[in-house]
Amino acid sequence: MPGPIQKDHLHLGAILFPGIDQADFTTPYEVLASVPNSTFHVLGREKTPVQDTHGLILTPEIPLAEAPQLDLLLVPGGAGVNALMEDEVVLAFVRRQAAGAKVIFSVCTGALVLGAAGLLKGRKATTHWASHHLLSSFGARPVNARVVVDGNVVTAAGVTSGLDGALRVVALLRGETAGQMIQLYTQYAPEPPFNCGTPESAAPELVRAVQSHLREVLEARRAIVKRVVAKPGW
Amino acid sequence: MPGPIQKDHLHLGAILFPGIDQADFTTPYEVLASVPNSTFHVLGREKTPVQDTHGLILTPEIPLAEAPQLDLLLVPGGAGVNALMEDEVVLAFVRRQAAGAKVIFSVCTGALVLGAAGLLKGRKATTHWASHHLLSSFGARPVNARVVVDGNVVTAAGVTSGLDGALRVVALLRGETAGQMIQLYTQYAPEPPFNCGTPESAAPELVRAVQSHLREVLEARRAIVKRVVAKPGW
Repeated sequence: MPGPIQKDHLHLGAILFPGIDQADFTTPYEVLASVPNSTFHVLGREKTPVQDTHGLILTPEIPLAEAPQLDLLLVPGGAGVNALMEDEVVLAFVRRQAAGAKVIFSVCTGALVLGAAGLLKGRKATTHWASHHLLSSFGARPVNARVVVDGNVVTAAGVTSGLDGALRVVALLRGETAGQMIQLYTQYAPEPPFNCGTPESAAPELVRAVQSHLREVLEARRAIVKRVVAKPGW
Repeated sequence: MPGPIQKDHLHLGAILFPGIDQADFTTPYEVLASVPNSTFHVLGREKTPVQDTHGLILTPEIPLAEAPQLDLLLVPGGAGVNALMEDEVVLAFVRRQAAGAKVIFSVCTGALVLGAAGLLKGRKATTHWASHHLLSSFGARPVNARVVVDGNVVTAAGVTSGLDGALRVVALLRGETAGQMIQLYTQYAPEPPFNCGTPESAAPELVRAVQSHLREVLEARRAIVKRVVAKPGW
């Protein structure tokens, strides 16, 4: 298959953490682990298994300290992002990788980790609709779009947008044919049963119900973002 | 939220196995583990962790022998389906669960396991496009659709169709509002970057490239299906 950098072996990776929303990781993984001539590294702060927001057990294979320089780093989201935004080990890792990676790719509220690491300053970015208002605190230029590409930073909106984002990333790394082949293999010709995938298209009471469900996480999140950007030198 | 059987606690579950295509499980899991008033059981032949086709480690929490009667059983697909189609322990489990479950739900080539268990005889069904020709061997009535509902058997097509299928299943179990709330939370308003998610929409050379990539698995699969339906009493 043709592609911009087809010949180089690519090192791709993602960070797992407690309270991850597993689909923010597993959906792009499905796409990215199929990239020809590449290795996917499943990373964790330690190698200890973690549980996602619903309890699914996921097992990192390489601790952050042993990860190679990656060509692509995926940062998923989830309620556990709250702790990650103040985890200096993870933030330092993300900054270090960003300096050498071709692409830093966040899905859902993973964008807030990029924000806390200072990577979104002056950049266009998106995140899950319920946390979108927090992007500007990190100096980002919030864009109401499903996938936003700004330099080497690619941000995708809530959960399922990781699929659209990952296919775009494959096209960036390996050319459109590589992305198309994965889209065909994964039979991605979506037929959502309802027309309510965004707060703009959903009924107001549905939006309020989801916001109410997320209230506790969102309130804690707002306080954390405030603390992060108040740190000296941020 | 309103729903047909909102008041009953639901037991949902999925079977993990070596060579699973992890997205066939993790995508519906994201939806189904959010069903109100329910427990999701992550099942395996044993509790030993398994690796998906790309190497991702997934960990079952309950062996099949200890699983309760489920209201919904999810059977994912992947190359490992080839072994499952001749695994009498798994097939007996699927048959036993099907007798008492409200919904048996296959994603991708998980349909072939339902087929090998005899559950598709005379039923309308779908599966991944590259294995669709095998459905009729099991006495199924193949339908070229993304999600097919026939009685208590719901089959979804390739990989990503598990999301559309799972949202449909939630609507069946808990009513449309429950499905809509999950669709909004997961921000499912897809924007596939290419128009090639089905063999009908993709360029012929792309279809051939994916088929060629799957050739070995498909050839073995054809021989297994032949053996399964040739067994006395099938």
